[in-house]
Formats: sequence, structure tokens, C-alpha cells
Amino acid sequence: MSLYAVILCGGRGERFWPRSRRRCPKQFISLFGSTSLLQLTDERMRGLCPAPRRLFVAPGGFRELVERQVRPRPGNLIIEPAGRNTAPAIALAAAHLIERDPDAVMAVLPSDHIITGQRAYEASLRLAVAQAGRGRLVTFGIPPTRPDTGYGYVQLGPKLGGRGRLTAHRVAAFREKPDAATAVRYVKSGDYLWNSGMFVWRADAVLAAFERLLPEFHDRLAACRRAGMTDRAVRALYRHAPAISIDYAIMEKADNIAVVRAGFGWDDVGSWLALERHLPASPGGNHFRGPAAALGAENCITDTDTGVIALLGTRDLVVVRSGDAVLVAHRDALGRMRELLKQLELLPAGRREL
Amino acid sequence: MSLYAVILCGGRGERFWPRSRRRCPKQFISLFGSTSLLQLTDERMRGLCPAPRRLFVAPGGFRELVERQVRPRPGNLIIEPAGRNTAPAIALAAAHLIERDPDAVMAVLPSDHIITGQRAYEASLRLAVAQAGRGRLVTFGIPPTRPDTGYGYVQLGPKLGGRGRLTAHRVAAFREKPDAATAVRYVKSGDYLWNSGMFVWRADAVLAAFERLLPEFHDRLAACRRAGMTDRAVRALYRHAPAISIDYAIMEKADNIAVVRAGFGWDDVGSWLALERHLPASPGGNHFRGPAAALGAENCITDTDTGVIALLGTRDLVVVRSGDAVLVAHRDALGRMRELLKQLELLPAGRREL
Repeated sequence: MSLYAVILCGGRGERFWPRSRRRCPKQFISLFGSTSLLQLTDERMRGLCPAPRRLFVAPGGFRELVERQVRPRPGNLIIEPAGRNTAPAIALAAAHLIERDPDAVMAVLPSDHIITGQRAYEASLRLAVAQAGRGRLVTFGIPPTRPDTGYGYVQLGPKLGGRGRLTAHRVAAFREKPDAATAVRYVKSGDYLWNSGMFVWRADAVLAAFERLLPEFHDRLAACRRAGMTDRAVRALYRHAPAISIDYAIMEKADNIAVVRAGFGWDDVGSWLALERHLPASPGGNHFRGPAAALGAENCITDTDTGVIALLGTRDLVVVRSGDAVLVAHRDALGRMRELLKQLELLPAGRREL
Repeated sequence: MSLYAVILCGGRGERFWPRSRRRCPKQFISLFGSTSLLQLTDERMRGLCPAPRRLFVAPGGFRELVERQVRPRPGNLIIEPAGRNTAPAIALAAAHLIERDPDAVMAVLPSDHIITGQRAYEASLRLAVAQAGRGRLVTFGIPPTRPDTGYGYVQLGPKLGGRGRLTAHRVAAFREKPDAATAVRYVKSGDYLWNSGMFVWRADAVLAAFERLLPEFHDRLAACRRAGMTDRAVRALYRHAPAISIDYAIMEKADNIAVVRAGFGWDDVGSWLALERHLPASPGGNHFRGPAAALGAENCITDTDTGVIALLGTRDLVVVRSGDAVLVAHRDALGRMRELLKQLELLPAGRREL
């Protein structure tokens, strides 16, 4: 029973515009230092999976970026004809793996998270693999550090395994993104963890779950497998694939779910505000990546690779300069980034910068 | 009695950073279109003064910029050893001119103003020249369009000449920058004009005023003239020259002053906020020069030559991208620009951008 890393390389890269672009989303850029989030994800798995057991799933448009950044072994880059959220990508990877190794256990890993604490990470994965060996679909829950309303939460059920602070549990319930008061209650209770989007399971177990919960898609996948998983067969599969997340398609409905309480540091770097958690603070509560000067500025974040960003009397702003584009956003408005990019599409100069 | 244009090309260019830089202040940049403010100033005088009668005064560091932009005739670029405000520059130009033409009348013109209405401009200058012919020191007063507290004001005295709306007056008083309530009273009264910093006088008349009001400097200037105005003599003159404005040194103290009520449009483009007066408004009261996109932005000004500036949920900001530098300033904080640039001097990357 071998562990395979399945690193998901899709994603639109809108929330980190203009550092991320449609052709180069967040997972491919170096938010800190010179290593991309994808490369960091790949490196984290080296101790558990040698290169032949590290697979990557990406839409065709990202093939070159993935090949350049992590050099997958031949056959280990699975190309999707189009992005269709996580469920089809995971099913496709499971179908590939089970042909290769009927006992394969797969760790499904987004490529755009920041994780700290390598030993704890590997220990958490080993516990998850042990649970997966019993046929369970294992998710990772992150002990919340703030009452964030941007995440789904997993309510812990009875303990299944592990010891000390590193334990596996049944899942009492999945909870959608809560309101602020509910989030405070979740965090205080200690019974709720953030739903991380990282999973471990046997390939056959997740395919069985697809068969039960998404039978039509599973039938098409079976046909694709009978056709030898050719490019043409995969294109046909994706033509009718539902754009649906694995959480919604499988996790919230299956009954053999376990959650591992993660002992590692985790950040899904969901918006520019995440930089505050990873950059030292300057006077005024500002956080600067790259050259910056500030006078009378408070609670601002700047990011630039070259030149300088100068702030004068500003508050609560995110200022990013990348390539020829400059973003100036109020921190409370970052949730409307997608709308802003739609406006940019209308500009000739803006379209070049998307 | 011939008219000479004396165009003052000094100035630090701090308030339009980062479009203006220390090596290329505001008068040398193209705030609108492709012609610099200096070039526009030069062009405005072509109808009144042929090239041999258009002179330029500039610190040595700006020699190349002036030569490239307006190609002065030989001998018509007067180099100052250093910037020393307007009084020494004007005295130096007057000393040059009087050697050339004892009856010279000089129009002293800052090179960084925006002026509209060429016919009215020329008519105002002709009226000023007629007053200067009677030995008066003539300033131009601009009918105020708002109760601006950033300008000095000139109080009109009895009429001396002109007709209709174009008239020359004695000056009842010069008033320092007023407080807001006083400025409102000035504008309502109709008796106060903005002090424009443009002047017309005979070279001998202004030198006589220097002799009476700044006798020590005038003695040194006389010695400089006796030495043939060599570079060495001018350097010696400037070593002790007071850094003082012509308003403070001469205009506020002389008794033979006249003011011409200007009939032309005038803007000294004192800060980035001036762009609002010269750019069309976009929805939300924003003003954009160069490519820009905005969502939920109000009362902002952007300026860029390349790329795009994207605003998301911001208010009351000035955002300028020029070269590698980005400025993001609250509009109420622009008065602290000089302090900000001092901070930039402390940064290696910032110093390159000054």
C-alpha cells in the first residue's frame, strides 16, 4: 500500500492579481522568497513520496509552468482538458492511479497553500494514511486561530486513532462558512476545525464514493478507463463533467469520513491580507514586501518586485505593483476583485494585464 | 523699447513626484499631451518676442534639459551656479539684458504654469509693457475662481490704465496666504487677485529697485557686471546671494508697483490635485490620466504612462506610477510630500527614484 502525492495545480489566480495572472495563478508565483507555492508543495512530499509517486493534475494551459517548475516524471502530469473544480480532477487522478497500483493511497494536495512544520506535517499524513488504510476518506482539519468566516468548518466526532494532540476523529458534521457570531462560538468550543481542502484516501475508496454519489459521472469515467484514458476519451469525459468541489460532491455526503486534527501550520493564502501573517510589521501596522516608504500610513500592505512604493497619509490599503499593473485596493474591498478584473477586461491596456 | 521674455527654469519638482524627479522637475515634464510646460511657456511668447529675445535662466544642472527642449539662441541661456529662489535669478537676467539693450523691458515668466487664452495673454502682456514703460514694476493678478488658501493675494488700488475687463491698477496691498474665512471674503469682494508670480518691468527699473531694497546684493551684482559677468564672477555673486523671492525682496516693498488684472486662464499646477481641473471626470468623481479601471472608487486621481492602475473601493487618493516608482497618497496629505521624499532618501531603492 504505497502513498502517492496528487498535487492539484488548477485555479484562476484572481485574488492575487496583479502578481498572479490568468496565465500564471498564485500557485506558480513566489509570494515569499524565490520558490513558488507549487514547488514548496512538491518539496514537502519528497520525504514521503519519491518522484515516481508524485503526480500533478493541471489544465492544459498550465502544462509548461508545471513542467518547468517541478519536472514531473513521465506520465505523472495529468492534463485536464479544462478546469472543472476539484471533483473531476481528483476522480481522473484516482482512475490513473488505480491502473498503476490497485492499492494506491493518494494524498490530494492543493498547490497553493503555505504550510509550516515539516515534521508535524509528515506525522499528520502518516496518521491519515493509517486511517485511509481502513477504507476511510480522510480530510485534514486545521485548529482555528481566529473566528474566520471565510472557511468551512468540520465538527469533530469520536476519536478514531492517534495520540496526544495528533488525533483522528469521525466527522460529526461539515458546516458551511458561518456568520461572525457562529464562528466565535466554533473557535471557543474547540470542537471545530477549518476544512483545509487536503485529503488522503485509497484510490479505490474514493472511486467507490464517486460511484455511489455521482453515478452518472462515474459511468462516464468507467467508459474513459475502458477506452484507455486517451486524450480523446478524457476530453469526452470532461465535456459532461460537473464543475463541482470534492467537498460538495463527496465529503459532505459520504459516511466513511475521518478528520485528522492537523499539527502543522497552515494558511491557504486566500487574499492579499494573508501577507500580514507572513511579513514582519513596520511602524503604523504596515507590512511591506519589497522597497517601500511610508509617511502617516497605517494598516497598509505593499508588494512590489522592483522600484519603490511610497505611501503618504493612507490607511487600510493594499498596494501591489507587478509588471506594468498597479492595484490599489481598500482592504475591505478585496472580495470584489473578480468584478474589478471584469472591468479590466473592457480596457485594451487592462486586458493585456489580466 | 523691446520686450524680452525671461523664462525662469529653476524649481525642485518635488510636488509632482514621481513624474517629476530632482533631475527633471515639473517644468520639464509633459503633464498633458507631449509638450512640456517649459516648451508651452516658450511657445506662448513667440508672437511677442522672436527667438533672439527669449532668454532662459536655469541652474547648471538643468542646462541640457533646457537646451534640448527649447534650443535657446547662443547667449540666451543664463546659468545660475545654484538655485537661490527668484530674486537673484531675476537680477542676474536684468544685468545681462541691460548690457545688451539699455531700454530692455523684461517679462519674467515661471516655466511651470498652465495658461489658456493666447489672445488675452498677449493683450495682458501688452498692457503690462505699456505700464512698465512708465517705470512701473508690473505684476499680474489672477481673478480667483475659488477661495484658495495656498496663494498670496493682491488688493486692487485705483485704476491706472486699460479698459473693459483688462485693466491695470495700483496695488493697495499684498496679502500673505489667508485663512479660509479671509479667502472667502477676498473672493466675494472682487478686489483681490491671486499673485501669479509673472512680472513685466524695464531692466533698469528693477535694478534700481534692487539697489534701494537689497543694496548689499546690488553692490555685488555691480562688481559682477564690472568683471564682465564671467562664470567666475557669477559664482562669486551667488556665493553670498540671499535665497529670497522677488515678491518678498522687491514687490512687497517697492512703491512703483502696478497690477494687471489678467484676462487669461491660469493655473500654477501646484499639486497633483490640479489634474482635476484639466482632466475630464469619470464616474465617481475620479480623474484618470492613462489606463485605469475602478470599482467602488470615489474622488481619486490616477496618472500613469504605461500599464494600468486599478482602484478597488478607494476614496480620496492620488495614485501615480512613473518609471519604477508608485505613489499612493491621500489627497489631504499631499502637503507632506517633501517629508516623504526625505524618507525615500534613506532607502537605497528610493534614492534611485528621487
